[in-house]
Amino acid sequence: MLAIKNIEWIGDARAGRLRLLDQTKLPEQVVYLDCDRVEQVADAIKCLAVRGAPAIGVAAAYGCVIGVQAAGPEGAGASEAQRDALGQAASLLASSRPTAVNLFWALDRMQCVSAPTPDALLAEARAIHEQDAAMCEQIGRNTVALIEKAVRAGRPAVLTHCNAGALATGGIGTATAGMYLAKQNKLAFRVYADETRPLLQGARLTVFELLIAGIDVELICDSAAAQVMRGGEVGMVITGADRIAANGDSANKVGTYSLAVLARHHGIPFYVAAPSSTFDRAIADGAGIPIEHRDAEEIVNGFGRRTAPSEVVAHNPAFDVTPHELIEAIITEKGLIQPVNADTVAQVLGMSVTV
Amino acid sequence: MLAIKNIEWIGDARAGRLRLLDQTKLPEQVVYLDCDRVEQVADAIKCLAVRGAPAIGVAAAYGCVIGVQAAGPEGAGASEAQRDALGQAASLLASSRPTAVNLFWALDRMQCVSAPTPDALLAEARAIHEQDAAMCEQIGRNTVALIEKAVRAGRPAVLTHCNAGALATGGIGTATAGMYLAKQNKLAFRVYADETRPLLQGARLTVFELLIAGIDVELICDSAAAQVMRGGEVGMVITGADRIAANGDSANKVGTYSLAVLARHHGIPFYVAAPSSTFDRAIADGAGIPIEHRDAEEIVNGFGRRTAPSEVVAHNPAFDVTPHELIEAIITEKGLIQPVNADTVAQVLGMSVTV
Repeated sequence: MLAIKNIEWIGDARAGRLRLLDQTKLPEQVVYLDCDRVEQVADAIKCLAVRGAPAIGVAAAYGCVIGVQAAGPEGAGASEAQRDALGQAASLLASSRPTAVNLFWALDRMQCVSAPTPDALLAEARAIHEQDAAMCEQIGRNTVALIEKAVRAGRPAVLTHCNAGALATGGIGTATAGMYLAKQNKLAFRVYADETRPLLQGARLTVFELLIAGIDVELICDSAAAQVMRGGEVGMVITGADRIAANGDSANKVGTYSLAVLARHHGIPFYVAAPSSTFDRAIADGAGIPIEHRDAEEIVNGFGRRTAPSEVVAHNPAFDVTPHELIEAIITEKGLIQPVNADTVAQVLGMSVTV
Repeated sequence: MLAIKNIEWIGDARAGRLRLLDQTKLPEQVVYLDCDRVEQVADAIKCLAVRGAPAIGVAAAYGCVIGVQAAGPEGAGASEAQRDALGQAASLLASSRPTAVNLFWALDRMQCVSAPTPDALLAEARAIHEQDAAMCEQIGRNTVALIEKAVRAGRPAVLTHCNAGALATGGIGTATAGMYLAKQNKLAFRVYADETRPLLQGARLTVFELLIAGIDVELICDSAAAQVMRGGEVGMVITGADRIAANGDSANKVGTYSLAVLARHHGIPFYVAAPSSTFDRAIADGAGIPIEHRDAEEIVNGFGRRTAPSEVVAHNPAFDVTPHELIEAIITEKGLIQPVNADTVAQVLGMSVTV
């Protein structure tokens, strides 16, 4: 595995601990948090030391193992005390990020373990982790052919936004997965990473993890993407998604829609890479996806220095929605959705079409 | 005048001084530099306390007055000593920003004053200042009708990038001039200001000066502009220009080209506001305009805190070029150039067309 380990279980089930890369300290310091109390895991999720929907689910699953370590008699089968401890751990972990769908999904799955001993829970947490890694790997395999095609066409640069990377998952990421495999396959490609204002996940996280993997990456300001595309080297744009409607309209970090419009203008294919779990079939189209507006302070006071007058009003949408018409394909672990529309989404994901 | 005074002569010619708003301290502190030595004026230009091509020219003109204050016998006519002092002052000021065209133009004009007494030089500096203010005013008059049209069409928001404002000129700015006059005319418009990474001139300067003028302004991240345009309130995009080729291709702060593409996609007119002196007729089209690439540190270390790993390579073009086809009109003090092409540029500027 080329990617940095952001989540790792150290030791055996009954005395082991969870090691998390503290992403709040990146890129200045690489610091690991060793958690042997469930409160530490909940705090790590709350303070964004671990972030990204899939990564949060995996971390919470391991958190459940820690939760029962002190409860049962050593070596004994599942006890009432262990089941109680699991319930308490799950409840604490669930409160750490109340809007994270993957978190609840992982906790539900852990609570379905019939005899919740540390060993049984660790096996389940590892299964969740491995399945997430396999999902990333499959998205990567579905992406790498597209990168190869771009390289062969003499447009060897891939442009990405925010961090849909290894740091956000239990594997090699979603938007980045194809990059890791392309590196493994020794493809002569390179990456432009948008810094991604206001929280700079591109500069802080994507650049960090790609550099560690030895991938040729250049950081750009978000507003330089258009000019970079015009330069003719960019063969594809690829981003992750936070939530995808039934027709393929995709919500992602603010700036993604901008890139999709710019890519269309320059004749560059724009791809979204996301696991099938990102689709919310209850939402017909992008108009139904609520957009979170965040505090102005993120823009004007984000990095320890005030950058605008204190009286300023800032408009800070955290996400935007890219309409499906601008997306060349959505790359899932189940295959490519191309062209993107309600029918192809339903076909690839194996869901019946709602008429 | 609604706009803040960034350049002001205090007192009479022989004992007066130049007061400059120190833009390096904005937006946190409003500090004025009182200059009574020519070295102080040169330093203020060098360290960007005064910035913007027209403003630099005006400040340098006043700097020449200071340069001769100590040279001549009080009350006497122009002496050899005064002419020498003027030459020395001009030479020092010329070295402060070697690429600033307006700087050299203003210094040449000051050196053409036949009897360079402080009084004569102050009169010439004031004339340069007033002509610049009049040019801004005229661009404003040519812009305000366009804002009015947008307001009447129910799209009352004007989106701008960087700072082509009062702070950059001896008057009410270029891209901002129409906003100041629209405010004076009580038009119900508002402004979205891009923060303008990496140096944040939009957040630090444009927001600052528009707030002081009581103009309704909202700060956005550069990457949010597309989504704001999609919202339907934006009736026009307007920016300044650093250099315009003979066919109307316009170089300006990086991100301007991005806005022009996004505006076209959303059916929003994109305008450039610039004095006729911005045109460089020796350059046929945008391909001939050199693009300055600046230090990566501006991106990764701009907020006083490191925002990317130290090994990162950053691609930091300071400018981009917007092709004339994407520009609805170029607004000059001589009138609107619309549609934008080599013929209309020559017609409006009163230059003969090169065939």
